[in-house]
Amino acid sequence: MKGKIHVYTGNGKGKTTAAIGLTIRAVGAGFKVFFGQFVKGEEYSEIKALKKLDNVVVKQYGRDCFIRNEPAEEDIMVARQGLAEMSDILQSGDYQLVVMDEANIAVYYKLFSLEELIEVLQNRADGVEVVITGRMAEEGLIKIADLVTSMEEVKHYYQQGIQARIGIEK
Amino acid sequence: MKGKIHVYTGNGKGKTTAAIGLTIRAVGAGFKVFFGQFVKGEEYSEIKALKKLDNVVVKQYGRDCFIRNEPAEEDIMVARQGLAEMSDILQSGDYQLVVMDEANIAVYYKLFSLEELIEVLQNRADGVEVVITGRMAEEGLIKIADLVTSMEEVKHYYQQGIQARIGIEK
Repeated sequence: MKGKIHVYTGNGKGKTTAAIGLTIRAVGAGFKVFFGQFVKGEEYSEIKALKKLDNVVVKQYGRDCFIRNEPAEEDIMVARQGLAEMSDILQSGDYQLVVMDEANIAVYYKLFSLEELIEVLQNRADGVEVVITGRMAEEGLIKIADLVTSMEEVKHYYQQGIQARIGIEK
Repeated sequence: MKGKIHVYTGNGKGKTTAAIGLTIRAVGAGFKVFFGQFVKGEEYSEIKALKKLDNVVVKQYGRDCFIRNEPAEEDIMVARQGLAEMSDILQSGDYQLVVMDEANIAVYYKLFSLEELIEVLQNRADGVEVVITGRMAEEGLIKIADLVTSMEEVKHYYQQGIQARIGIEK
Protein backbone atom coordinates (compact mmCIF):
# COMPACT_ATOMS: atom_id res chain seq x y z
CA MET A 1 0.00 0.00 0.00
CA LYS A 2 1.21 3.51 -0.79
CA GLY A 3 2.21 5.70 2.16
CA LYS A 4 0.52 9.07 2.45
CA ILE A 5 1.62 12.37 0.95
CA HIS A 6 1.59 15.30 3.41
CA VAL A 7 1.83 18.93 2.31
CA TYR A 8 2.60 21.78 4.73
CA THR A 9 2.18 25.13 3.05
CA GLY A 10 0.97 28.69 3.75
CA ASN A 11 2.80 31.84 4.77
CA GLY A 12 2.97 31.14 8.53
CA LYS A 13 5.84 29.85 10.64
CA GLY A 14 5.89 26.11 11.31
CA LYS A 15 6.22 24.25 8.01
CA THR A 16 9.83 23.05 8.16
CA THR A 17 9.58 22.69 11.93
CA ALA A 18 6.54 20.41 11.49
CA ALA A 19 8.56 18.29 9.04
CA ILE A 20 11.36 18.07 11.60
CA GLY A 21 8.83 17.09 14.24
CA LEU A 22 7.51 14.33 12.00
CA THR A 23 11.08 13.17 11.51
CA ILE A 24 11.58 12.92 15.27
CA ARG A 25 8.29 11.12 15.75
CA ALA A 26 9.14 8.61 13.00
CA VAL A 27 12.60 8.01 14.44
CA GLY A 28 10.97 7.51 17.83
CA ALA A 29 8.90 4.73 16.29
CA GLY A 30 12.00 3.06 14.84
CA PHE A 31 11.61 4.28 11.24
CA LYS A 32 14.41 5.38 8.94
CA VAL A 33 14.05 8.94 7.63
CA PHE A 34 15.55 10.77 4.66
CA PHE A 35 15.37 14.53 5.06
CA GLY A 36 16.09 16.35 1.79
CA GLN A 37 16.08 20.13 1.75
CA PHE A 38 15.78 22.12 -1.46
CA VAL A 39 16.77 25.76 -2.02
CA LYS A 40 18.47 26.17 1.35
CA GLY A 41 22.19 25.45 1.58
CA GLU A 42 23.33 26.94 4.85
CA GLU A 43 23.68 24.50 7.73
CA TYR A 44 20.98 25.84 10.01
CA SER A 45 20.60 24.64 13.60
CA GLU A 46 17.95 22.05 12.70
CA ILE A 47 20.22 20.47 10.09
CA LYS A 48 23.00 20.22 12.65
CA ALA A 49 20.67 18.58 15.16
CA LEU A 50 19.09 16.17 12.66
CA LYS A 51 22.52 15.04 11.49
CA LYS A 52 23.30 13.86 15.00
CA LEU A 53 20.37 11.43 15.06
CA ASP A 54 20.67 7.76 14.22
CA ASN A 55 18.40 6.62 11.39
CA VAL A 56 18.18 10.07 9.82
CA VAL A 57 20.02 11.00 6.64
CA VAL A 58 20.08 14.71 5.79
CA LYS A 59 20.97 16.18 2.39
CA GLN A 60 20.73 19.78 1.18
CA TYR A 61 20.13 20.65 -2.45
CA GLY A 62 20.44 24.40 -2.56
CA ARG A 63 22.66 27.43 -2.33
CA ASP A 64 20.46 29.74 -0.26
CA CYS A 65 21.39 32.87 -2.12
CA PHE A 66 19.02 33.27 -5.04
CA ILE A 67 15.79 33.81 -3.13
CA ARG A 68 15.94 37.58 -3.51
CA ASN A 69 16.97 37.32 -7.18
CA GLU A 70 16.42 35.05 -10.15
CA PRO A 71 17.75 31.51 -9.79
CA ALA A 72 21.04 30.96 -11.59
CA GLU A 73 21.93 27.98 -13.77
CA GLU A 74 23.66 26.40 -10.79
CA ASP A 75 20.59 26.68 -8.54
CA ILE A 76 18.60 24.80 -11.15
CA MET A 77 21.31 22.17 -11.55
CA VAL A 78 21.62 21.54 -7.81
CA ALA A 79 17.84 21.25 -7.39
CA ARG A 80 17.43 18.91 -10.36
CA GLN A 81 20.25 16.73 -9.08
CA GLY A 82 18.48 16.65 -5.72
CA LEU A 83 15.19 15.63 -7.30
CA ALA A 84 16.93 12.81 -9.20
CA GLU A 85 18.61 11.62 -6.01
CA MET A 86 15.37 11.77 -4.05
CA SER A 87 13.60 9.91 -6.83
CA ASP A 88 16.00 7.00 -6.28
CA ILE A 89 15.51 7.24 -2.51
CA LEU A 90 11.73 7.18 -2.89
CA GLN A 91 11.82 4.22 -5.26
CA SER A 92 14.23 2.25 -3.08
CA GLY A 93 11.83 1.97 -0.15
CA ASP A 94 14.85 2.14 2.17
CA TYR A 95 13.29 4.99 4.18
CA GLN A 96 9.80 4.87 5.66
CA LEU A 97 9.58 8.65 5.82
CA VAL A 98 11.00 10.99 3.18
CA VAL A 99 10.90 14.77 3.65
CA MET A 100 11.17 17.07 0.62
CA ASP A 101 11.62 20.32 2.48
CA GLU A 102 10.94 23.48 0.45
CA ALA A 103 10.07 21.47 -2.66
CA ASN A 104 7.14 23.85 -3.23
CA ILE A 105 9.57 26.74 -3.45
CA ALA A 106 11.69 24.81 -5.94
CA VAL A 107 8.58 24.37 -8.11
CA TYR A 108 7.57 28.01 -7.64
CA TYR A 109 10.96 29.15 -8.94
CA LYS A 110 10.76 26.60 -11.77
CA LEU A 111 13.91 24.76 -10.65
CA PHE A 112 11.89 21.71 -11.65
CA SER A 113 8.29 21.39 -12.75
CA LEU A 114 5.24 20.30 -10.81
CA GLU A 115 4.82 17.43 -13.27
CA GLU A 116 8.35 16.21 -12.57
CA LEU A 117 7.73 16.36 -8.83
CA ILE A 118 4.44 14.49 -9.11
CA GLU A 119 6.04 11.79 -11.27
CA VAL A 120 8.73 11.24 -8.64
CA LEU A 121 6.07 11.04 -5.92
CA GLN A 122 3.94 8.59 -7.81
CA ASN A 123 6.86 6.25 -8.43
CA ARG A 124 7.62 5.88 -4.72
CA ALA A 125 7.81 2.40 -3.26
CA ASP A 126 4.95 1.07 -1.18
CA GLY A 127 4.95 2.10 2.46
CA VAL A 128 6.92 5.30 1.93
CA GLU A 129 5.33 8.33 3.59
CA VAL A 130 6.31 11.67 2.03
CA VAL A 131 6.27 15.16 3.50
CA ILE A 132 6.47 18.21 1.22
CA THR A 133 6.87 21.71 2.60
CA GLY A 134 7.08 25.28 1.39
CA ARG A 135 4.84 28.23 0.68
CA MET A 136 2.69 28.39 -2.40
CA ALA A 137 1.95 24.70 -2.92
CA GLU A 138 0.36 24.33 -6.33
CA GLU A 139 -3.19 23.12 -6.81
CA GLY A 140 -1.99 20.06 -8.72
CA LEU A 141 0.02 18.92 -5.71
CA ILE A 142 -2.80 19.56 -3.26
CA LYS A 143 -5.02 17.45 -5.50
CA ILE A 144 -2.82 14.35 -5.23
CA ALA A 145 -1.89 14.87 -1.55
CA ASP A 146 -3.58 12.94 1.27
CA LEU A 147 -3.07 15.55 3.97
CA VAL A 148 -2.69 19.28 3.46
CA THR A 149 -2.22 21.83 6.22
CA SER A 150 -1.91 25.52 5.50
CA MET A 151 0.06 27.39 8.13
CA GLU A 152 -1.63 30.78 8.27
CA GLU A 153 0.22 33.72 9.71
CA VAL A 154 -2.00 35.37 12.30
CA LYS A 155 0.75 37.44 13.90
CA HIS A 156 4.51 37.51 13.43
CA TYR A 157 7.27 39.48 15.07
CA TYR A 158 8.96 39.93 11.69
CA GLN A 159 6.26 42.57 11.28
CA GLN A 160 7.93 44.38 14.20
CA GLY A 161 11.25 44.32 12.34
CA ILE A 162 12.81 41.45 14.29
CA GLN A 163 15.25 39.36 12.24
CA ALA A 164 15.50 35.57 12.09
CA ARG A 165 17.38 34.30 15.16
CA ILE A 166 19.70 31.33 15.48
CA GLY A 167 18.06 28.48 17.39
CA ILE A 168 14.55 29.81 16.78
CA GLU A 169 14.16 30.49 13.07
CA LYS A 170 17.39 29.02 11.72
CA MET B 1 14.85 41.21 27.35
CA LYS B 2 11.86 38.91 27.30
CA GLY B 3 11.92 35.98 24.87
CA LYS B 4 9.04 35.68 22.46
CA ILE B 5 5.76 33.83 22.95
CA HIS B 6 4.77 31.58 20.03
CA VAL B 7 1.30 30.12 19.64
CA TYR B 8 0.50 27.28 17.23
CA THR B 9 -3.21 26.69 16.97
CA GLY B 10 -5.93 25.75 14.45
CA ASN B 11 -7.53 22.45 13.55
CA GLY B 12 -4.85 21.22 11.11
CA LYS B 13 -2.04 18.73 11.64
CA GLY B 14 1.35 20.18 12.54
CA LYS B 15 1.08 21.99 15.88
CA THR B 16 2.88 19.60 18.21
CA THR B 17 5.22 18.56 15.40
CA ALA B 18 6.17 22.22 14.89
CA ALA B 19 6.93 22.49 18.62
CA ILE B 20 9.10 19.39 18.38
CA GLY B 21 10.85 20.88 15.36
CA LEU B 22 11.54 24.07 17.32
CA THR B 23 12.95 21.92 20.10
CA ILE B 24 15.33 20.22 17.69
CA ARG B 25 16.38 23.52 16.18
CA ALA B 26 17.03 25.03 19.61
CA VAL B 27 19.04 22.00 20.69
CA GLY B 28 21.02 22.27 17.46
CA ALA B 29 21.96 25.79 18.49
CA GLY B 30 23.11 24.61 21.92
CA PHE B 31 20.06 25.69 23.91
CA LYS B 32 18.46 23.80 26.76
CA VAL B 33 14.79 22.95 26.23
CA PHE B 34 11.98 22.00 28.58
CA PHE B 35 9.13 20.24 26.80
CA GLY B 36 6.00 20.03 28.93
CA GLN B 37 2.94 18.32 27.56
CA PHE B 38 -0.52 18.82 29.03
CA VAL B 39 -3.55 16.55 28.65
CA LYS B 40 -1.64 13.74 26.94
CA GLY B 41 -0.18 10.99 29.09
CA GLU B 42 0.68 8.17 26.75
CA GLU B 43 4.31 7.94 25.72
CA TYR B 44 3.94 8.62 22.03
CA SER B 45 6.83 8.17 19.60
CA GLU B 46 7.86 11.83 19.75
CA ILE B 47 8.15 11.71 23.52
CA LYS B 48 10.35 8.65 23.28
CA ALA B 49 12.58 10.35 20.72
CA LEU B 50 12.79 13.66 22.61
CA LYS B 51 13.77 11.86 25.80
CA LYS B 52 16.84 10.48 24.06
CA LEU B 53 18.21 13.93 23.31
CA ASP B 54 20.76 15.69 25.46
CA ASN B 55 19.66 19.10 26.72
CA VAL B 56 15.96 18.28 26.49
CA VAL B 57 13.81 17.55 29.53
CA VAL B 58 10.36 16.11 28.82
CA LYS B 59 7.47 15.97 31.28
CA GLN B 60 3.85 14.96 30.71
CA TYR B 61 1.01 16.39 32.74
CA GLY B 62 -2.01 14.42 31.61
CA ARG B 63 -3.83 11.13 31.55
CA ASP B 64 -4.97 11.06 27.93
CA CYS B 65 -8.35 9.59 28.67
CA PHE B 66 -10.79 12.40 29.35
CA ILE B 67 -10.81 14.03 25.93
CA ARG B 68 -14.02 12.32 24.88
CA ASN B 69 -15.66 12.95 28.28
CA GLU B 70 -15.61 15.53 31.01
CA PRO B 71 -12.30 15.98 32.82
CA ALA B 72 -12.17 14.25 36.20
CA GLU B 73 -10.82 15.74 39.42
CA GLU B 74 -7.53 13.96 38.77
CA ASP B 75 -7.13 15.47 35.28
CA ILE B 76 -7.50 18.92 36.80
CA MET B 77 -5.05 18.11 39.57
CA VAL B 78 -2.39 16.76 37.20
CA ALA B 79 -2.71 19.79 34.90
CA ARG B 80 -2.56 22.31 37.75
CA GLN B 81 0.48 20.58 39.19
CA GLY B 82 2.04 20.78 35.73
CA LEU B 83 1.32 24.49 35.46
CA ALA B 84 2.89 25.11 38.88
CA GLU B 85 5.97 23.11 37.89
CA MET B 86 6.28 24.93 34.58
CA SER B 87 5.85 28.24 36.34
CA ASP B 88 9.01 27.47 38.34
CA ILE B 89 10.81 26.33 35.18
CA LEU B 90 9.88 29.54 33.39
CA GLN B 91 10.96 31.71 36.28
CA SER B 92 14.26 29.89 36.75
CA GLY B 93 15.63 30.84 33.35
CA ASP B 94 17.38 27.47 33.23
CA TYR B 95 15.90 26.67 29.82
CA GLN B 96 16.11 28.98 26.82
CA LEU B 97 13.11 27.34 25.19
CA VAL B 98 10.04 26.10 27.06
CA VAL B 99 7.24 24.26 25.26
CA MET B 100 3.76 24.10 26.79
CA ASP B 101 2.27 21.53 24.45
CA GLU B 102 -1.55 21.37 24.42
CA ALA B 103 -1.83 24.17 26.97
CA ASN B 104 -4.66 25.64 24.87
CA ILE B 105 -6.61 22.42 25.32
CA ALA B 106 -6.02 22.55 29.06
CA VAL B 107 -7.51 26.05 29.11
CA TYR B 108 -10.38 24.99 26.84
CA TYR B 109 -11.31 22.22 29.28
CA LYS B 110 -10.89 24.62 32.20
CA LEU B 111 -8.14 22.54 33.83
CA PHE B 112 -6.66 25.95 34.58
CA SER B 113 -7.76 29.39 33.49
CA LEU B 114 -6.43 31.63 30.75
CA GLU B 115 -5.57 34.22 33.41
CA GLU B 116 -3.48 31.68 35.31
CA LEU B 117 -1.64 30.71 32.14
CA ILE B 118 -0.97 34.33 31.21
CA GLU B 119 0.33 35.11 34.69
CA VAL B 120 2.78 32.20 34.45
CA LEU B 121 3.93 33.42 31.04
CA GLN B 122 4.41 36.99 32.15
CA ASN B 123 6.53 35.96 35.11
CA ARG B 124 9.05 34.12 32.92
CA ALA B 125 12.71 35.04 33.23
CA ASP B 126 14.36 37.19 30.60
CA GLY B 127 15.56 35.35 27.52
CA VAL B 128 13.10 32.47 27.82
CA GLU B 129 11.25 31.73 24.58
CA VAL B 130 7.89 29.97 25.05
CA VAL B 131 5.89 27.85 22.64
CA ILE B 132 2.21 27.12 23.30
CA THR B 133 0.25 24.67 21.20
CA GLY B 134 -3.26 23.30 20.90
CA ARG B 135 -6.49 23.99 19.08
CA MET B 136 -8.76 26.80 20.09
CA ALA B 137 -6.25 29.30 21.45
CA GLU B 138 -8.18 32.02 23.22
CA GLU B 139 -8.19 35.63 22.02
CA GLY B 140 -6.56 36.77 25.26
CA LEU B 141 -3.54 34.56 24.59
CA ILE B 142 -3.27 35.64 20.94
CA LYS B 143 -3.27 39.22 22.14
CA ILE B 144 -0.19 38.80 24.32
CA ALA B 145 1.65 36.43 21.93
CA ASP B 146 4.41 37.63 19.62
CA LEU B 147 3.92 35.00 16.94
CA VAL B 148 0.71 33.15 16.12
CA THR B 149 0.29 30.57 13.39
CA SER B 150 -3.01 28.89 12.73
CA MET B 151 -2.65 25.45 11.18
CA GLU B 152 -5.64 25.19 8.88
CA GLU B 153 -6.82 21.80 7.74
CA VAL B 154 -7.15 21.86 3.97
CA LYS B 155 -7.36 18.10 3.55
CA HIS B 156 -6.92 15.22 5.97
CA TYR B 157 -7.02 11.48 5.54
CA TYR B 158 -8.91 11.15 8.82
CA GLN B 159 -11.82 12.24 6.61
CA GLN B 160 -11.30 8.98 4.72
CA GLY B 161 -11.59 7.02 7.98
CA ILE B 162 -7.89 6.38 8.46
CA GLN B 163 -6.86 6.15 12.12
CA ALA B 164 -3.84 7.76 13.81
CA ARG B 165 -0.74 5.69 13.04
CA ILE B 166 2.31 5.09 15.20
CA GLY B 167 5.34 7.02 13.93
CA ILE B 168 3.21 9.46 11.94
CA GLU B 169 0.50 10.83 14.23
CA LYS B 170 1.58 9.40 17.56
